[in-house]
Amino acid sequence: MNNATDTKAPVVGVDLGGTKILAAVVDPSGQILARCKKKTRAEKPHQEVIARIAECVRGAITESGLTLDRIAGLGIGAPGALNPQTGIIHLAPNLHWEEVPLQQILHKELGIPVYIGNDVNVGTLGECRVGAGVGMKNIVGIFIGTGIGGGLVFDGKVYEGAGFMAGEIGHIPMKNKGPVCGCGNRGCFEAVAGRLAIVRSIQKKAEKGKETMLTRELNGDFSRIKSRLLATAWKEKDPLTVKVLKKAARYIGRGVGVVIGLLNPEAVILGGGVIEAMDDAFLDAIRSYSEKYSFAPMFRDCRILRARLGDDAGILGAAFYARDRLLQK
Amino acid sequence: MNNATDTKAPVVGVDLGGTKILAAVVDPSGQILARCKKKTRAEKPHQEVIARIAECVRGAITESGLTLDRIAGLGIGAPGALNPQTGIIHLAPNLHWEEVPLQQILHKELGIPVYIGNDVNVGTLGECRVGAGVGMKNIVGIFIGTGIGGGLVFDGKVYEGAGFMAGEIGHIPMKNKGPVCGCGNRGCFEAVAGRLAIVRSIQKKAEKGKETMLTRELNGDFSRIKSRLLATAWKEKDPLTVKVLKKAARYIGRGVGVVIGLLNPEAVILGGGVIEAMDDAFLDAIRSYSEKYSFAPMFRDCRILRARLGDDAGILGAAFYARDRLLQK
Repeated sequence: MNNATDTKAPVVGVDLGGTKILAAVVDPSGQILARCKKKTRAEKPHQEVIARIAECVRGAITESGLTLDRIAGLGIGAPGALNPQTGIIHLAPNLHWEEVPLQQILHKELGIPVYIGNDVNVGTLGECRVGAGVGMKNIVGIFIGTGIGGGLVFDGKVYEGAGFMAGEIGHIPMKNKGPVCGCGNRGCFEAVAGRLAIVRSIQKKAEKGKETMLTRELNGDFSRIKSRLLATAWKEKDPLTVKVLKKAARYIGRGVGVVIGLLNPEAVILGGGVIEAMDDAFLDAIRSYSEKYSFAPMFRDCRILRARLGDDAGILGAAFYARDRLLQK
Repeated sequence: MNNATDTKAPVVGVDLGGTKILAAVVDPSGQILARCKKKTRAEKPHQEVIARIAECVRGAITESGLTLDRIAGLGIGAPGALNPQTGIIHLAPNLHWEEVPLQQILHKELGIPVYIGNDVNVGTLGECRVGAGVGMKNIVGIFIGTGIGGGLVFDGKVYEGAGFMAGEIGHIPMKNKGPVCGCGNRGCFEAVAGRLAIVRSIQKKAEKGKETMLTRELNGDFSRIKSRLLATAWKEKDPLTVKVLKKAARYIGRGVGVVIGLLNPEAVILGGGVIEAMDDAFLDAIRSYSEKYSFAPMFRDCRILRARLGDDAGILGAAFYARDRLLQK
């Protein structure tokens, strides 16, 4: 029925997020042949969201001028806790999903092989194959957004671990007696260096009377701070913002040091909303702290790079992930 | 000339330490057929030490009743910074070696394929194949001795990283503004939880007047504290020793938490002199701190086990490592 065994056939990669669904038809070299985008509408029942994913996949295929029977398979980078073997999403809070057999439903709907993987893992795979890590085999992706996620690529392949949760770097212990994390522990990496943690720290200090341009900008509503505004305040050398972001850079550098010492990667690739918004001076601050927290000979092996693919990391990575799993069968 | 391509032929595994050389003839199932042991005499030139390794290998083969031409290959677990591809030991302080082409010299001497790997990595591989991790695919070894070393086995194979230094967990940052480590950084894992760090901490507190049975036992010479004496003082509930070792257990638990969060392994296997000497209550303390510092669902996937093979981990691991590399050719 389909071209699953044809290694030259394109695959479709999907990035399933809480607000939008992105799909792309991707050829074996990583060229995007066509795209489609839809709103997720996560407030609807999962059946409706999955129907929208299928529509988005068909939309991208139609746009490419191909037909479904020319597509070797479908890869999906999905958020939350999932099992890539059974294809079930166990828990995805930002989709309000619990125990949803995503792979099975989509396979029934589309009739092609479907593979699901963790969104951050497949994003890291995308960066490894055609992004900042091109030509490398062993890389670690660290994505600093609202929270902090990570992905591992060893020997050119996604490394998923015993329970398919490898790379959960946001929850490694970072600060003793630090702030309580969403996971229940204290002082996790994302609880001290994710965007929410950064904003919380600025807000707390502003409320204690520290001067910051952000108080004016936001009219007191700190929940409105997005990465772009942080980047502006950093660039304009707002003292409080600079202080808090330097502390975050220090924690991020420390996280990079942990990764380097444990895994000796060729590169650590930094991405996510905060990194995308910030200038190179912020990356340099992270690099310099990373050196301080790394075993010297291992630091020398490792490049600390900015992610290159932006929103395309997810769709490209999902496509490569599907291709890897097809070839592995 | 030799049986390199015969997958049923035994291999020889060597554990090259600063004080002793262990060699064993090992069959494919991990049965030790014969052994040999020699002093390293690291104070002699490297040529002499290597000649002793060759003697030790020949000794084990003779003991097994086999001849060199029945041996498929030789694996060596060696300390220090080395390159498993070129077979050169770049720097091994406890052998006083710099840029020694160990593999080349031994291959010339013995005429069989020779593979060198990091001692801690191959020890972890040994534990994975026939020790505490038998039946598992993804494990991390943490060895607490004078310092702290680590080894990674992913998908059943040793993971070496970009510069063959993966697993250097002793140098991940653990305590901000902590004590200076041998590597030059501050607060590395081994600088707060290795045996030297534990002893230093007890000594410092004893010199400040804290009561401890160790002062009597050692007549003031704390450099004589070995793991066994620490274990005795812990068992006899010497308050200072218990306090310092609980703090070490906390750091070790934190290290385990980092490993779990980042790598989602099936097991973390704890070994090395300190762990071997200490009782199960110490391991339970580590387990309980590990849980505190781990992302809960990943902690549930992971068993925290005591290494089982003791001194045999190195020779068995080196044998499996040689076999893996022979099959990979």
